[in-house]
Amino acid sequence: MDIQKTHNIGTLGPSMKGQKVTVAGWVEDLRELGKLTFLTLRDVTGVSQIVVAGPDNLAQVKDLTRQSVVRILGTVQESKARDFTFEIKADTIDVLSRAVHPLPIDPLGRLESGIDNRLNARALDLRNQKTAAIFKLRHNTLLCIRKTLTDLGFLEVNTPKIIGSASEGGANLFSLKYFDKQAYLAQSPQLYKEQLTLGLERIFEISSFYRAEKSHTVRHLTEFTSIDIEAAFMDYTDVMQILESLVVNVFEYVEKNCISEQKSLGIEIKKPKAPFDRVTYTQAIEELGKQGLELQFGDDLLDSHLRKLGELHPGFYFLTDWPLKLKPFYIHEKDDPSLSKSFDLQYGYLELSSGGRRLHDPQKIRARLVEQGLNPAQFEDHLRAFDWGMPPHSGWGLGLDRLMAVLTQIDNVREVVLYPRDPERLFP
Amino acid sequence: MDIQKTHNIGTLGPSMKGQKVTVAGWVEDLRELGKLTFLTLRDVTGVSQIVVAGPDNLAQVKDLTRQSVVRILGTVQESKARDFTFEIKADTIDVLSRAVHPLPIDPLGRLESGIDNRLNARALDLRNQKTAAIFKLRHNTLLCIRKTLTDLGFLEVNTPKIIGSASEGGANLFSLKYFDKQAYLAQSPQLYKEQLTLGLERIFEISSFYRAEKSHTVRHLTEFTSIDIEAAFMDYTDVMQILESLVVNVFEYVEKNCISEQKSLGIEIKKPKAPFDRVTYTQAIEELGKQGLELQFGDDLLDSHLRKLGELHPGFYFLTDWPLKLKPFYIHEKDDPSLSKSFDLQYGYLELSSGGRRLHDPQKIRARLVEQGLNPAQFEDHLRAFDWGMPPHSGWGLGLDRLMAVLTQIDNVREVVLYPRDPERLFP
Repeated sequence: MDIQKTHNIGTLGPSMKGQKVTVAGWVEDLRELGKLTFLTLRDVTGVSQIVVAGPDNLAQVKDLTRQSVVRILGTVQESKARDFTFEIKADTIDVLSRAVHPLPIDPLGRLESGIDNRLNARALDLRNQKTAAIFKLRHNTLLCIRKTLTDLGFLEVNTPKIIGSASEGGANLFSLKYFDKQAYLAQSPQLYKEQLTLGLERIFEISSFYRAEKSHTVRHLTEFTSIDIEAAFMDYTDVMQILESLVVNVFEYVEKNCISEQKSLGIEIKKPKAPFDRVTYTQAIEELGKQGLELQFGDDLLDSHLRKLGELHPGFYFLTDWPLKLKPFYIHEKDDPSLSKSFDLQYGYLELSSGGRRLHDPQKIRARLVEQGLNPAQFEDHLRAFDWGMPPHSGWGLGLDRLMAVLTQIDNVREVVLYPRDPERLFP
Repeated sequence: MDIQKTHNIGTLGPSMKGQKVTVAGWVEDLRELGKLTFLTLRDVTGVSQIVVAGPDNLAQVKDLTRQSVVRILGTVQESKARDFTFEIKADTIDVLSRAVHPLPIDPLGRLESGIDNRLNARALDLRNQKTAAIFKLRHNTLLCIRKTLTDLGFLEVNTPKIIGSASEGGANLFSLKYFDKQAYLAQSPQLYKEQLTLGLERIFEISSFYRAEKSHTVRHLTEFTSIDIEAAFMDYTDVMQILESLVVNVFEYVEKNCISEQKSLGIEIKKPKAPFDRVTYTQAIEELGKQGLELQFGDDLLDSHLRKLGELHPGFYFLTDWPLKLKPFYIHEKDDPSLSKSFDLQYGYLELSSGGRRLHDPQKIRARLVEQGLNPAQFEDHLRAFDWGMPPHSGWGLGLDRLMAVLTQIDNVREVVLYPRDPERLFP
């Protein structure tokens, strides 16, 4: 039995009247009306009405369950139905796959299911146009990000996810047995991407990374997708500028190119105004003080503080120049050495990205490792590269899943990841 | 101290005579000549000659080691040197980073180092234009692959790499502790990508996957990059066609767009002739028999057989219609049920890709699991999705690292991976 289609439903129209087409897709609805059956057929590109007549064809669709897969050879004709400008009169019908009812969730979303039920039946959940729209937006977001960074001279690289030493301090790493050695899953490409500026100057990576943290929030996953860049001869303000234009580009691109996805989701995506607010840490604690939230210099900002700052700076904003001691060992100090050349990109309380200028002097890095209670000897493999002509460099990591949550105006990152992983969820 | 540059060296030329520019890069050579020092400076885009004069500037470059990083504000002028059409007369010189000698390898490649030494100093190895060219080609290959698949209506997806059950039989999986559960690193996105055709029809993924196999060959890594597609309403011949045009597109794209990289590598990349030879398994054992290599139907093809077939079919060729019993449980049988709707894409003895039509009838899959000594109960989570309207579908996985080895005419896949992982290599 042949299984191919000649046309995607989305490419058909009333102008093709009289044309023979072969379409295939999922049965969304079936209505008997006298001697005819009207079948609503959806593929990934669109939806159409199929008119079924004649004893053989009617026998084929009798008892056919919704979401079964059929292939139809037929003729395009005008439709008198209110919802369709054209329809397809079926010549032959092949049932390719029968859906077994009851289905675990209603893929049309008319009966709402909780997120756990939907994730447990994710493949079927994607037949819901709202869910499918999220992943079409995700594809387009990735396209736009890669194009933007490539146009800026960044090369895409792949760094290892199985690493031999616990980098960046080693907290919250998944560990695994690597033959007779101990290994870990990378939490970020931080050390690799810094090294790569020595040879490739500007690089980016988009990949899964792993954090063994028992967080039960709507914004943490144990396996997440990170977009990382690192650039030689750039200061932190330069890569901040790149991040800002990247985010603006993404919103502009999907605003213009993903009209039907916005409609499916019932949202309007609008390009954010640039420049984003740039708030130094010192300004931030002043602003919070005026709101009755007293903080000392050096205190970390908690969710409640970030929520308040989000109210004061709606939309995207940068929090910059953090106290050095709050930042990892590789972050560069400012002229005032209590401050750092660092920034977070925030959306309300949500941290989307963290970045900064990196130290490129290995002596300074060794001193900072000791200050932070880490052992420089464990980083010697990494630090060797800093003797080979390490350029000054800056970079950031951007959480794709969080960006997608903001873009789609959805709170829970589990909604924008096909098969999310959290401490409780390892299936499907 | 400022660290930015105004120009990439590759964008300069003799037509910019008299213009002030700031460049930055790595010192490749230093020659004193009377009261001048000539410095060869390279960034990722090109190489230029810097003329250094005057006591302050000469003091800056005195004792400067090769591969140190400098930033130069200067003026473009004509050059009388044989190798340069222009040069930069330095006004000011900042030394941004000093390289400490001796370096572990010669980054200019004049002294050849073994692959282990180069991999141990990978960041520095990338200053070798030959090595850098490989990763520029890899970036461009990825660009072209994503564009080709997107244009064909495929959506890029991210499937989980931490999986809860040992899919595809479970041999050679790395296992890890996932909080209080047992988990594994995915060897392929096979089961996920099949499920996703139910909602998204055509999907692809480009990601790292993991195989805990103690192989010590030039073509096996424990962490490798795989390009995977899966498409509803396509038979195996359809996705074979897509694979063929994808490979041809990649070669054509880099042939035209990566001229200087080919020069650096000393190779000429040529678009392969299509269609590729298509040799059925049955034909292959006949051809081998004529060459004195006797095989029975059902015997697997060993390296020696594939090498011989590679001689008979130079370049890319497909080996199709394998005995069903040699193929995984999810592969669809042909009308003759001893054969399967399957193919490998070969280049000589090297298997680049494996694919086929998949079973979409869950009863057939259960029967095949039993036949292969696997327990259907362990796959019930996966098989549930086949009751929700699973379309007929086909797909393939293509090893990016092997493809890059063929493209760059290099034998060892370790050369085309930045930080390769094999049973012995876990660092850097």
